[in-house]
Amino acid sequence: MVSPDFEKLYEKYRESVDKRIAALIKAGEPATVYLPIRYVFGAGGKRLRAVLVLLSCEAVGGESHDALDAAAAVEILHNFTLVHDDVMDHADLRRGKPTVHKKWDENVAILTGDEMIAQAYRSLLRTSSPRLTQIMSVYTDALVQVCEGQGMDKEFESRKDVRLGEYFRMIARKTGKIIAASAEIGALVGGAQRNVASRMRKFGQQLGRAFQIQDDLLDITGDARKFGKIIGGDIVEGKKTYLLLKALERAGGADYDLLKSISPASGMSGAKIRKILGIYRQTGAIDEAEKEIKLSTQRALRTLAPLQQSRAKSMLIWLSRRLLERSS
Amino acid sequence: MVSPDFEKLYEKYRESVDKRIAALIKAGEPATVYLPIRYVFGAGGKRLRAVLVLLSCEAVGGESHDALDAAAAVEILHNFTLVHDDVMDHADLRRGKPTVHKKWDENVAILTGDEMIAQAYRSLLRTSSPRLTQIMSVYTDALVQVCEGQGMDKEFESRKDVRLGEYFRMIARKTGKIIAASAEIGALVGGAQRNVASRMRKFGQQLGRAFQIQDDLLDITGDARKFGKIIGGDIVEGKKTYLLLKALERAGGADYDLLKSISPASGMSGAKIRKILGIYRQTGAIDEAEKEIKLSTQRALRTLAPLQQSRAKSMLIWLSRRLLERSS
Repeated sequence: MVSPDFEKLYEKYRESVDKRIAALIKAGEPATVYLPIRYVFGAGGKRLRAVLVLLSCEAVGGESHDALDAAAAVEILHNFTLVHDDVMDHADLRRGKPTVHKKWDENVAILTGDEMIAQAYRSLLRTSSPRLTQIMSVYTDALVQVCEGQGMDKEFESRKDVRLGEYFRMIARKTGKIIAASAEIGALVGGAQRNVASRMRKFGQQLGRAFQIQDDLLDITGDARKFGKIIGGDIVEGKKTYLLLKALERAGGADYDLLKSISPASGMSGAKIRKILGIYRQTGAIDEAEKEIKLSTQRALRTLAPLQQSRAKSMLIWLSRRLLERSS
Repeated sequence: MVSPDFEKLYEKYRESVDKRIAALIKAGEPATVYLPIRYVFGAGGKRLRAVLVLLSCEAVGGESHDALDAAAAVEILHNFTLVHDDVMDHADLRRGKPTVHKKWDENVAILTGDEMIAQAYRSLLRTSSPRLTQIMSVYTDALVQVCEGQGMDKEFESRKDVRLGEYFRMIARKTGKIIAASAEIGALVGGAQRNVASRMRKFGQQLGRAFQIQDDLLDITGDARKFGKIIGGDIVEGKKTYLLLKALERAGGADYDLLKSISPASGMSGAKIRKILGIYRQTGAIDEAEKEIKLSTQRALRTLAPLQQSRAKSMLIWLSRRLLERSS
């Protein structure tokens, strides 16, 4: 089977997840809460985490149908983080459309996010598995860690002394853990042995690491229209990205001082952003980011190697590689 | 056994819950998230819902020790709603101390609340019970409904045509469901038969109804210092309380027009608040509120009647009656 079939198959998985989510949120009241939830899921999205749940379930010999509720749960959890993070980051756009707090207001966005957590657990609880308690634990740890990661990320914004090691711990929580949990939960629903489920978790951890560094890179290289955000937005907001921290390790003199001077409150001219992008290039931070992404992806793929050959396994490999090439 | 012993016993239960919660949140990082959580639980509180879990467990023949993690979970869930609701209501004080978003900022309050949901589930998952999945479902329904109830409450603020029937549906979600879930979860952990657990839920529903109407009443009669909020605060905020809706049913002419004119954006003089309090008295809305509270409490107590005699049952009766007399 070659890549084009995987594209179609991915679309099929994505649609099955969207259908499951739509069924879950279609009938709720009050409108204050459920209209914005429907808006969030109506705005599209790759549903990467949900598809990972389904593929991981199949890759260990399970039926992806059994993992649909868990897949929906993971996807709702991810989208909850987007709604609340957008409030905290004062973001105006998400997937090219106004964010919930922009279209309604902050109160609606807070409440919508809360209700999404609730609906996510409701979906997860529909999963039929003898290991439901373990699945709930993995899922809850993901919720704990994604909040901790967001807290670290916000703390980093006002700190000048963040090191790459801290960055890696932050992204492991904020991004890596949900992706790792997606793979692990899929495997658990699929009836995987303990060591196989743990292998799938490690696959997700590495994939999540590659994914977040790629995200940092896309902030300065991505297709602005498709991505629905401004090039260099992370720089303006004073985000401690891989690129900034790596460039800080390597830059000297005036370049170092310029990078150190970035702060979320100061605002920034287009010329200054271009200057910083130049430093990212000259210090090799961009090259290093690309290397890190490739390395983490290779590690992820190596983790999959011992799995028995299957269409799902091939598709996980295809998906991991495709994430390297994404532009949004 | 007479009331004074129950006071001491209540204190013992409360302390055991506080200890369990403190252990859960003592070691977390980052500080951005865990410091505010410790602040919230350091500010005190009755821990009513947690004690209800413990007593309900004992009242059906269980050991309250087995229900401690579930009791902590319910209490953390309740406190999460306070942190987020205070942001949405722009409340400055809670239990006489600055609210989380006042002491830190709104971002911290949003994230703190999110992490509290996560920690609440983590605590609940530690519960050892063959019915953990059912317990998780009851709990998740409570989270779903408390968000829906808050959404209804916020919608009501800008609506002029809210009827008492809608009010009762709103408080059943916003206040009643967590209290009902506390009693039901306690019973489930205690190994109650299905019909007994359902009986305990109904007890909690009625108690929650009495509790919320009492809360509406305390807004205009409570001890401001002890309660940590302003007398008539609900009126100023345009809240659709039992008192306002009952008075609207009964008032005519200029009084009716005055009540209808209340809106959250308009601000209000002390003289206007006193005038409105006068209407609440003259229309008998206050008397009716007191009747409703007594009626719901009686219904709650009748629901307990078939339970076998026990110290926990007596204490549930004592506690229900004591809630009638509370001043904060």
